[in-house]
Amino acid sequence: MKKKELIYQGKAKNLYATDRKNVLLAEYLDQATALNGKRKDQIVGKGTLNNQITCLIFDYLAEQGIKTHLISNYSQTEQLLHKVEIIPLEVVLRNVAAGSFSKKFGLAEGVVLQAPIIEFYYKNDSLDDPFMNEAHIYEFQLATKSQIEYIKSQTYEINQKLQQLFEAKGIQLIDFKLEFGLLADGSLVLADEISPDTCRLWDTQTKEKLDKDNYRKQLGDLVPIYQEVLSRLKK
Amino acid sequence: MKKKELIYQGKAKNLYATDRKNVLLAEYLDQATALNGKRKDQIVGKGTLNNQITCLIFDYLAEQGIKTHLISNYSQTEQLLHKVEIIPLEVVLRNVAAGSFSKKFGLAEGVVLQAPIIEFYYKNDSLDDPFMNEAHIYEFQLATKSQIEYIKSQTYEINQKLQQLFEAKGIQLIDFKLEFGLLADGSLVLADEISPDTCRLWDTQTKEKLDKDNYRKQLGDLVPIYQEVLSRLKK
Repeated sequence: MKKKELIYQGKAKNLYATDRKNVLLAEYLDQATALNGKRKDQIVGKGTLNNQITCLIFDYLAEQGIKTHLISNYSQTEQLLHKVEIIPLEVVLRNVAAGSFSKKFGLAEGVVLQAPIIEFYYKNDSLDDPFMNEAHIYEFQLATKSQIEYIKSQTYEINQKLQQLFEAKGIQLIDFKLEFGLLADGSLVLADEISPDTCRLWDTQTKEKLDKDNYRKQLGDLVPIYQEVLSRLKK
Repeated sequence: MKKKELIYQGKAKNLYATDRKNVLLAEYLDQATALNGKRKDQIVGKGTLNNQITCLIFDYLAEQGIKTHLISNYSQTEQLLHKVEIIPLEVVLRNVAAGSFSKKFGLAEGVVLQAPIIEFYYKNDSLDDPFMNEAHIYEFQLATKSQIEYIKSQTYEINQKLQQLFEAKGIQLIDFKLEFGLLADGSLVLADEISPDTCRLWDTQTKEKLDKDNYRKQLGDLVPIYQEVLSRLKK
């Protein structure tokens, strides 16, 4: 397999073409951003950790019957992916109040929601990823109604699988962000990454934050924390 | 009928108890606010105009089969209402991009939407009336699923009736905000007001703004504009 030209430069990873048709290589970067990219830092070791954590979680979800874009881990910082056309939505599922949700609705962080809540945000940096409802999604033709129904049912199912995975490791899954994409054959699969960059993870006992909020809130170094998450997942 | 104690003080109207059970008196004020009440001005004549416009529109909707809280006009600035428990949602319907919608999605004011869009905002001044989705509504128990389905179908129907009313008067209905409330018998009815304070209304030909945006954007005096809307509706 040959790595070819850079085709997408993201905040936390780059995507490269390969010599195989519809196969891409994702390189996870030693980079963290906050405030929609306005703050940016090099964090040595983060790329390796998020690559490994994402591969481990996507492999677990695939075993549980969830279709994903991941083909396989490729190197410390790289993974091989089926090429997808990303649906430009950030699909957020919340089990517990935290972050922007707490702020918006005046709810203390840590309040357990009565039922998981799904929110859609328009992936659009120039508009600051606005929160939207389903009528907005259809107006801007970001996805069809049947795609949204499928994305919601997959997201609830992924939530159950992830909660089972994390609970066994002493981690409470507060919320997470997913992205979905269309394969060349038109089928919709889980894409992007699942890591402490895209989930809020709290230690079940101590409620210590084991995720990117340590960077957002400048609480401490991410690397030992992400290493802790990886170690627990590997146990 | 005797006017009794003040039971609610709003930004544009006050509500009084009466000596009749479950009957209230709304007094429309000569007041305009913007930025969720941070800007406030006295505008002599506005209360009379919005009281008359709302009575005229609610009477029209009632003739068209829409159930409302209005009993009757009572004086220049007052109307008699069935008491309702307000559902704490601002129900916004948009036919054309304008205001916060244009800003949020980077769409020029005046772009006609493919289909009317309904948005829900949590009526909560201390939280700045946040935009929410249906999952949020159920989480905070602001309304039941069947109430939301009814509110949406009524809102689409009211939109059709209002468009018919305004189009005949040379006015384009850009968007509007509704509130709904529960009568003593538990039935859900249209409440609050429908006026140039709560609708965006543009002259169909000139696209001149015939609504509160003249105050929000400090374009000009509201009174002659609201008078123009009332005159056209009375024709």
